[in-house]
Amino acid sequence: MELLYRKIIQKELQQLEDKLSSSISSDINLATEVTQHVVNSGGKRIRPVICILVAKMLNYKGSELIKLASSIELLHTATLIHDDVVDQSSTRRGKESIHTKWDNSHSVLVGDFVYSKAFQLMASLDNQEIIRILADSTNRISEGEVLQLSLKKRKVLSKEDYFEIIDRKTAELFKASAITAGSLASCNENEFIALTNFAIALGNNFQIKDDLLDYFGDEELTGKKIGKDFEEGKFTLPLIIALPLMSEEHKFMILETLFDNKESDFKEIVKIIKDTGAVKKVEEICNQFSETCFKELESFPESDYKRALLDIVKNINTRVS
Amino acid sequence: MELLYRKIIQKELQQLEDKLSSSISSDINLATEVTQHVVNSGGKRIRPVICILVAKMLNYKGSELIKLASSIELLHTATLIHDDVVDQSSTRRGKESIHTKWDNSHSVLVGDFVYSKAFQLMASLDNQEIIRILADSTNRISEGEVLQLSLKKRKVLSKEDYFEIIDRKTAELFKASAITAGSLASCNENEFIALTNFAIALGNNFQIKDDLLDYFGDEELTGKKIGKDFEEGKFTLPLIIALPLMSEEHKFMILETLFDNKESDFKEIVKIIKDTGAVKKVEEICNQFSETCFKELESFPESDYKRALLDIVKNINTRVS
Repeated sequence: MELLYRKIIQKELQQLEDKLSSSISSDINLATEVTQHVVNSGGKRIRPVICILVAKMLNYKGSELIKLASSIELLHTATLIHDDVVDQSSTRRGKESIHTKWDNSHSVLVGDFVYSKAFQLMASLDNQEIIRILADSTNRISEGEVLQLSLKKRKVLSKEDYFEIIDRKTAELFKASAITAGSLASCNENEFIALTNFAIALGNNFQIKDDLLDYFGDEELTGKKIGKDFEEGKFTLPLIIALPLMSEEHKFMILETLFDNKESDFKEIVKIIKDTGAVKKVEEICNQFSETCFKELESFPESDYKRALLDIVKNINTRVS
Repeated sequence: MELLYRKIIQKELQQLEDKLSSSISSDINLATEVTQHVVNSGGKRIRPVICILVAKMLNYKGSELIKLASSIELLHTATLIHDDVVDQSSTRRGKESIHTKWDNSHSVLVGDFVYSKAFQLMASLDNQEIIRILADSTNRISEGEVLQLSLKKRKVLSKEDYFEIIDRKTAELFKASAITAGSLASCNENEFIALTNFAIALGNNFQIKDDLLDYFGDEELTGKKIGKDFEEGKFTLPLIIALPLMSEEHKFMILETLFDNKESDFKEIVKIIKDTGAVKKVEEICNQFSETCFKELESFPESDYKRALLDIVKNINTRVS
């Protein structure tokens, strides 16, 4: 299904790609080469899309939007690059990850290079509130990463821990994308609050759906190996909800596989989780987040941009990739 | 020898330590714990010291100085933490490095946490010129790191490559320390240029002396294992200058040791380098940088702060740790 935003902000999306390309070019060739490998590997650009749509919904006409949207995508890219060192994933967005194609040193240093490019873009914006929002978000995201690391200890993750992690690791930058766009467009306080709530709900919804796809997605459509999170020992919502609903025997088998990285038939695990009815419960949670998204956008005047944002919300729960 | 600055900015140095401690405290305990391990391991704080002395020499009386100086020290700390992943050094400032005490994931993520804290401090300054200077410096430093990585290929480093690397990896943040202090104190354009030249020369001098100490220092005084750079396969100025001055036999032996990490008697290598007369040549280069430092400070009015800066310059070439 072709999403509405692709049509109405086509020009801005091209400007975004151009800005990303020019931002990451450096006289140190290796830095450009490694960064291009990641930036050009076709991410969804959902954060900059939100940023652009929100600013346009608020009637922003200035010239700073693409810089802002690019800096947000680069921040996101830098966290992905560093994540790969932690997860030691061999692929990212269907391509070899940096530490596989090069090594850990390249991931660390090129990740820092991408961060620095994001900060340069931010610093070039003539709006100190935005710089502060993004600095605070960067901090909350990195704290989320450390929190996740500290919880990686042969321990069943609670629903609370899970939500705390995705709030920091995913919802935080969705929020920053929306409220920095709001700040750029000089929105009022009520709009600022509505954008905050909208984007946090959208980020949660997006991440939970992503975690569902890790169990129930289609590799060819997602470009992501199914069961990757599970293989990396990550507890996500489908499993957290399913565990108390399955037999002790199944629970033991799944935890043993997860903690000790034992060989197992992932299809069997998927089936066990499905049989608990957990998927429906996860989908209900997703729907609640969608409802919040719709509600929080109500007060904004109708426009194609608002319709495109609502379209993204609707699409998240039906998306297959 | 007690350096002058310790007496005259004693209060500010204590404020700096307090600010560093409060900045790195986080509700994610692991982030605080790991960061404290590095921040409290007694670095020289030379960058914040330069920043404080320059601002005070320029008669700055405002309240932003300690925030600025702390953000610079945190930027430096973050690069050290990430450097350790690249170098895989087992110690840092005489203590276990993060990746030894914890692992690479901790180094990457806690390094990012420290960066984010530095950016938050920067963003809290009411001076966008400073934010831009620091964002640009962060970028040049990270490019320097990638450049160094790209040159790590069984290849003799040229003097030009060496100076390009230390310009980015060391002199850049010295420069930023001085000129952001200048910006804070609203210095004029000539002062800005003089501070730039002063700090770049000081940074070069500092790094070259550091590289000399890696061969000829005293482990107990430096708290750093002698021959650490050499062991990590790093070409530094003493070796670069000595190589063309030694016999082919010695050259072969040293390069083989460096490239293949072969066992060798480091004392013998130190003796070979000494016998070429390279040390004197390196010291002459250091003296030239010192001269530049003295010259560039001439136009500033006399004060205890200026004397303390000159004192640091004099001390660099005689320092033993």
